[in-house]
Amino acid sequence: MNMNKDKRLKLGLPKGSLQEATLKLFRKAGYYVSVSSRSYYPVFDDEEIHSMLIRAQEMARYVEDGHLDCGLTGKDWILEQNADVVEVAELIYGKGGFSPVKWVIAVPMDSKIKRVEDLEGKRIATELVGFTKRYLKSKGVKAEVDFSWGATEVKPPHLADAIVELTETGASLRANNLRIVETIIESTTRFIANKKAWQDKWKRQKMKNIAMLLQGALTAEAKVGLKMNVPEKSFKRVLNLLSAMHSPTVSPLSDTGWYAVEVITDEKMVRDLIPKLKSIGASGIVEYPLNKVIP
Amino acid sequence: MNMNKDKRLKLGLPKGSLQEATLKLFRKAGYYVSVSSRSYYPVFDDEEIHSMLIRAQEMARYVEDGHLDCGLTGKDWILEQNADVVEVAELIYGKGGFSPVKWVIAVPMDSKIKRVEDLEGKRIATELVGFTKRYLKSKGVKAEVDFSWGATEVKPPHLADAIVELTETGASLRANNLRIVETIIESTTRFIANKKAWQDKWKRQKMKNIAMLLQGALTAEAKVGLKMNVPEKSFKRVLNLLSAMHSPTVSPLSDTGWYAVEVITDEKMVRDLIPKLKSIGASGIVEYPLNKVIP
Amino acid sequence: MNMNKDKRLKLGLPKGSLQEATLKLFRKAGYYVSVSSRSYYPVFDDEEIHSMLIRAQEMARYVEDGHLDCGLTGKDWILEQNADVVEVAELIYGKGGFSPVKWVIAVPMDSKIKRVEDLEGKRIATELVGFTKRYLKSKGVKAEVDFSWGATEVKPPHLADAIVELTETGASLRANNLRIVETIIESTTRFIANKKAWQDKWKRQKMKNIAMLLQGALTAEAKVGLKMNVPEKSFKRVLNLLSAMHSPTVSPLSDTGWYAVEVITDEKMVRDLIPKLKSIGASGIVEYPLNKVIP
Amino acid sequence: MNMNKDKRLKLGLPKGSLQEATLKLFRKAGYYVSVSSRSYYPVFDDEEIHSMLIRAQEMARYVEDGHLDCGLTGKDWILEQNADVVEVAELIYGKGGFSPVKWVIAVPMDSKIKRVEDLEGKRIATELVGFTKRYLKSKGVKAEVDFSWGATEVKPPHLADAIVELTETGASLRANNLRIVETIIESTTRFIANKKAWQDKWKRQKMKNIAMLLQGALTAEAKVGLKMNVPEKSFKRVLNLLSAMHSPTVSPLSDTGWYAVEVITDEKMVRDLIPKLKSIGASGIVEYPLNKVIP
Amino acid sequence: MNMNKDKRLKLGLPKGSLQEATLKLFRKAGYYVSVSSRSYYPVFDDEEIHSMLIRAQEMARYVEDGHLDCGLTGKDWILEQNADVVEVAELIYGKGGFSPVKWVIAVPMDSKIKRVEDLEGKRIATELVGFTKRYLKSKGVKAEVDFSWGATEVKPPHLADAIVELTETGASLRANNLRIVETIIESTTRFIANKKAWQDKWKRQKMKNIAMLLQGALTAEAKVGLKMNVPEKSFKRVLNLLSAMHSPTVSPLSDTGWYAVEVITDEKMVRDLIPKLKSIGASGIVEYPLNKVIP
Amino acid sequence: MNMNKDKRLKLGLPKGSLQEATLKLFRKAGYYVSVSSRSYYPVFDDEEIHSMLIRAQEMARYVEDGHLDCGLTGKDWILEQNADVVEVAELIYGKGGFSPVKWVIAVPMDSKIKRVEDLEGKRIATELVGFTKRYLKSKGVKAEVDFSWGATEVKPPHLADAIVELTETGASLRANNLRIVETIIESTTRFIANKKAWQDKWKRQKMKNIAMLLQGALTAEAKVGLKMNVPEKSFKRVLNLLSAMHSPTVSPLSDTGWYAVEVITDEKMVRDLIPKLKSIGASGIVEYPLNKVIP
Repeated sequence: MNMNKDKRLKLGLPKGSLQEATLKLFRKAGYYVSVSSRSYYPVFDDEEIHSMLIRAQEMARYVEDGHLDCGLTGKDWILEQNADVVEVAELIYGKGGFSPVKWVIAVPMDSKIKRVEDLEGKRIATELVGFTKRYLKSKGVKAEVDFSWGATEVKPPHLADAIVELTETGASLRANNLRIVETIIESTTRFIANKKAWQDKWKRQKMKNIAMLLQGALTAEAKVGLKMNVPEKSFKRVLNLLSAMHSPTVSPLSDTGWYAVEVITDEKMVRDLIPKLKSIGASGIVEYPLNKVIP
Repeated sequence: MNMNKDKRLKLGLPKGSLQEATLKLFRKAGYYVSVSSRSYYPVFDDEEIHSMLIRAQEMARYVEDGHLDCGLTGKDWILEQNADVVEVAELIYGKGGFSPVKWVIAVPMDSKIKRVEDLEGKRIATELVGFTKRYLKSKGVKAEVDFSWGATEVKPPHLADAIVELTETGASLRANNLRIVETIIESTTRFIANKKAWQDKWKRQKMKNIAMLLQGALTAEAKVGLKMNVPEKSFKRVLNLLSAMHSPTVSPLSDTGWYAVEVITDEKMVRDLIPKLKSIGASGIVEYPLNKVIP
Repeated sequence: MNMNKDKRLKLGLPKGSLQEATLKLFRKAGYYVSVSSRSYYPVFDDEEIHSMLIRAQEMARYVEDGHLDCGLTGKDWILEQNADVVEVAELIYGKGGFSPVKWVIAVPMDSKIKRVEDLEGKRIATELVGFTKRYLKSKGVKAEVDFSWGATEVKPPHLADAIVELTETGASLRANNLRIVETIIESTTRFIANKKAWQDKWKRQKMKNIAMLLQGALTAEAKVGLKMNVPEKSFKRVLNLLSAMHSPTVSPLSDTGWYAVEVITDEKMVRDLIPKLKSIGASGIVEYPLNKVIP
Repeated sequence: MNMNKDKRLKLGLPKGSLQEATLKLFRKAGYYVSVSSRSYYPVFDDEEIHSMLIRAQEMARYVEDGHLDCGLTGKDWILEQNADVVEVAELIYGKGGFSPVKWVIAVPMDSKIKRVEDLEGKRIATELVGFTKRYLKSKGVKAEVDFSWGATEVKPPHLADAIVELTETGASLRANNLRIVETIIESTTRFIANKKAWQDKWKRQKMKNIAMLLQGALTAEAKVGLKMNVPEKSFKRVLNLLSAMHSPTVSPLSDTGWYAVEVITDEKMVRDLIPKLKSIGASGIVEYPLNKVIP
Repeated sequence: MNMNKDKRLKLGLPKGSLQEATLKLFRKAGYYVSVSSRSYYPVFDDEEIHSMLIRAQEMARYVEDGHLDCGLTGKDWILEQNADVVEVAELIYGKGGFSPVKWVIAVPMDSKIKRVEDLEGKRIATELVGFTKRYLKSKGVKAEVDFSWGATEVKPPHLADAIVELTETGASLRANNLRIVETIIESTTRFIANKKAWQDKWKRQKMKNIAMLLQGALTAEAKVGLKMNVPEKSFKRVLNLLSAMHSPTVSPLSDTGWYAVEVITDEKMVRDLIPKLKSIGASGIVEYPLNKVIP
Repeated sequence: MNMNKDKRLKLGLPKGSLQEATLKLFRKAGYYVSVSSRSYYPVFDDEEIHSMLIRAQEMARYVEDGHLDCGLTGKDWILEQNADVVEVAELIYGKGGFSPVKWVIAVPMDSKIKRVEDLEGKRIATELVGFTKRYLKSKGVKAEVDFSWGATEVKPPHLADAIVELTETGASLRANNLRIVETIIESTTRFIANKKAWQDKWKRQKMKNIAMLLQGALTAEAKVGLKMNVPEKSFKRVLNLLSAMHSPTVSPLSDTGWYAVEVITDEKMVRDLIPKLKSIGASGIVEYPLNKVIP
């Protein structure tokens, strides 16, 4: 990977749990990315993009110091690294779906620790040592924070008094008989840029375009297109219903007295919208999938 | 699952072979349903729906007695339970595809049994004991009908003279050297409702809406959208061809003398339609996929 | 399979590495093809098509001698068989993707063989014996060409001086320390027809239709639909941008001063097109997937 | 399967969860049994044995009425069928290991049902309808017992007040928030015989031999062989230690003053035995695996 | 792989369907062989052995011409290649088990071909072109024999009149509605040597040793050890029973009047032997597994 | 897990790559250990052992500070933690086999770094930060050592000048074009004890017994038993051959003039031993597997 030439954007992709979802997102955004099994340098079909797989935990560090122009990683690891970078876009997706992940302080079900303050003098195990220390300091709490190499949930009560751990459904915490004291970060994926790279006009435009396409692809996951035919007499009511939230496209049909109406709408709303549309006279309602939606 | 509050629809989902296909269908209809691995209570993103996984065999019983407001199960098991329920909709889908399943009377290839009447005095093994007994009675045939816990095909000739068994391709029957005497049910999936729940205005509307969306999603599996450009001189012939079966949407294009024509059509017809359209002057023909089609 | 009746097209499908991709392509083209696990006769939902699975290596032979009316196979095996057939269409798809495969002459990294001429008097192992012999003859080179049953890459230097072998990424060659001397064929999939069958009016039309649908499905893999709203003031610039390569469909919207513009475009161009469209005033840009595109 | 000739033993093998473990056990006992994927007639390399796969639930019925001479099934299903058969041997093995399974009465954690007596007037769902009814009757309790097609654990509290269900670790009950009221059967696998077949001298001997070999193979799972060298001075103590539970085989070695001692012992005891033997002077201790142990 | 030094044995291992079984056999014989995924040169922990993976079809050719000193392949491919090699040992094992494979002439069920003679003037498809031609010639039959690239069973009746094909259970032939006319080879695996290498004293001894160990490992698959205690009064009868087929090892036990008796016997006989031994007074019968048996 | 009572040994088992191999080893040593999928507390069938799954990286820390009495982990992580613990036994086994793993300093193939000294002033990425720093200090080298969260091999040359990384076959290093400068640790698994626990008489004996059984099981992996019959005339030569390395057990057979000879030997030697034994007159040679060998 020659990283020195002009018009080259050095992009870090998160290796590990986010990797597959990230490559799929780039694919939807319009990039073919080929990853050979033993290489850490995915090849884009855009020669201006030079990419590298990096662990999410380290991404912000390498973007901050300029080894990379930009990259995708979680807000949690940006905070852990305390990195000074530009957040170009928030991209709400993850390994398992489209909601944020949480880091929580957890303790054994029967622990006396009820609030952050009760952690004074205690031992805490976590993978997120840096942020946890700063967080406790900001609350005026002194505690020992140890790096945990994994299996953090098993540590209380024998090996730690509390943990700071990632949770999605809470199932793993419950299985280990732990109780959540407090959520300390809700984290989503971010597209971040090096500060100097952001000053470069060509790079900034390139990054903005990539962000726009990634956002467009993500947005489309939750949207659908809806077409229908509406007779003259229902036209007003249908338009009123749709116009509240969307900008319907209307074309009069050759058949006298009918209109073709089309909207882009949230997929989640369709199940309520269709019965209503039907009941006020729309017919021939058709829903179709989308690849990208850019407002 | 609190099943007592107002505006709650208690919905039974079939556990087992239909489960995955059913959840996929609800997903296409617009519902996010999360099923955790050990729970029998799938959670809908619609708080008014309270669902439960129930074996298809028992569904009709629990809908009939009101433990559930509605549910999805096969016509076969409704008949087996002899249940008095409302059939809201027929939904032609199944584990393996989109065709009905059949229950057949089968006997060994070299059996003397040729017609239902020949079963007089014989032993029949089946999982569908209730319906089989009623069916034979209606034909004036007396026979012993035993419940079979499975592996029914292996029973003739040693353990039974005939069986009543589910078949899709007949492959399993052939492999066991069995011959079909008669088909006694062709069964498809039904959306059924409790009679009292059906009287409740709110519940009925809710069930009708769900049925409409499920139907819309199923219909879309077999449909596609077709767009094309048609020059003035071909316009009439194209319209004649399409109007026979569809309601094309026509918009004159800004380019003088061209029309944009769009139809929703059966996917199966497209392979014949496209060469014809092409041959009579249509161009720029584009086929696109659909999520839902509601007439 | 009755192959004698009127209006029956005998079609060979390639068994093996191309099989799955081929069946998927026919599915996209509009045919349901069911393949039971032990049968070599896939059943089309079009009764006029009688298909058979045949190894790609032998396809051209059976199409040439009329056992089949038509079939799909690689250009490489048509050349190997030296078969006299009609090439109805080139279909650029394969097991792993959409690029041609190559047959190369390869030798050990430190071999003295640098050019085809250096093969004089050497032993060459290959699965492509016929074509290799003719190729060398055309170059005036005399060498021993042995049929290789597989594991061809392992043969140099102990069991052969050079090989002629299929390669996609070159990874297998590198792993065996081999160097490419020359590419002798670049091969893609072809839809071929028997010469006599091609003279039959009904068969030719049928084959042309199938080819059109297969091409339409393949083309759609690389295309998307794009819709957008364009205000009066941007209209000209947007149209200029799009008209260079496409035929946009334009409909004036009911909202005064806006136009709905729609184009079919290469999916690869979208990532450049969208930022440009956005920057010159288009909004509400929506990309949607396509099943077939027939120009 | 010709089941009529002389010197043929008709043997039922349990289809389903016990199937694999059963076939493995017969393999260890010395029989090669080949099961082709679609056939229900496993073929033994002993022509006198004619076997058939039958669901464990139905086995006792078919053994009782003489369709089979003998078979393997659980004690639970023998009781459910209330079958009058000979129990030739108890074979303690199962799908997941070597301990008995239990059928328990279970109720919701917060149910008022504490004892069997509290079931008076309640609805109970179970797959084990026959035995449950007889059990309750023997306790003087009247309750409704419904056949459950599966997913029994999900039924309380909405669809049943209590269940009678199979449990191994109790994990599934806990996951459904159920509490055990009472265990009503502890069941192990039995080798059962038809009463008449048992009177037949040849068949009885054949069945006894099979039972001996199956038992021998099962016993060997929990046993190992142990060899060691013991010097004169330790001989008495070693012999005392071993003789308490085993019958050691002793051979004086050619080396003056040493003995070779060998015992068959429980594999579970070895971890205590070896350190003791070592400490009292045994050396060259070797443990080896066994295939069969017949006392 | 340096194949030129002294005291190096060049050994060919069959790549493909026999590969895994062959490596397992060498492992049992006492060799650790490591095969890295992309290399064709398995590494033995015996530096004198240099091995190479070669397709079974080509093995005999390379052994005959001295590129390899020895190798393992099927009798069928030795005959196909018509190779002049030394057969050091027959090793009865294969991909699926321990029985020979067969090459048969097969024709459609309703073909008029009943005997080899009926093939006169017919077209035959096979992978075994060379041997088939010689076989037919020896029978005085003239027929066209075409090389088949696979899927040979599908060819009759449309693409061939008969085939010569490998069969194990005949299932594939039946599935294609083919009937066996005659078996032309029964083939097992052979350990073959180059004639010149066989003259080399060191190489011959090395090959003989390898063959002995492979045979010893194969033999052990079908054998077990049996130990028992026999009281004085039973001693003669037990010895008579065992001595008929084996050479029992007898040691008098310290316990007065008992003997320890041990034999190596065929695993298949044990199920008959144990009940007999038990019935004539042996006790404490123990069966144990073996790794190698060399007579 | 109650960790406070008397006669309880708190044992740490390595979670992750060593976990499966460790549990298998304990199984062979004679312990049944059940691990339920979500729990970190494997249950031993020995009530005196209380075990916990801990990452190998952290094991030494928790054994050193007395949270655990003992545990299994790699020498590498004991050194990384710089932990003051007792090494009870070295156990040569690992995820993939039975050889030590290595940590090496690696640099890009074309780097100017040739010796450890050349690392002066460079950046090194590694998971083994503590040991690497101490190692460099001992060599008088100053360098920046950064913690790497994984994907360490990808870092040179862009993100690091050198790495310290675990390697088994070197394949991953080669794939990333890295060259080994030096091996800094060869590491095997160790059974370690807390210093205070080691002073406790009961605990020390318990740990010694466990170590003896684990060692016995590991030793048995590489050993086999060998039995043979030797005639009078060969007796001396056979005994000379065997006695050099083993202590054969000899029993005169009842058959006049024959001896039964038995040895435990390295499995790797058997392939040389058997041909020799055979050539000097031994016969009926049988090799059998072992579970444990304690000298």
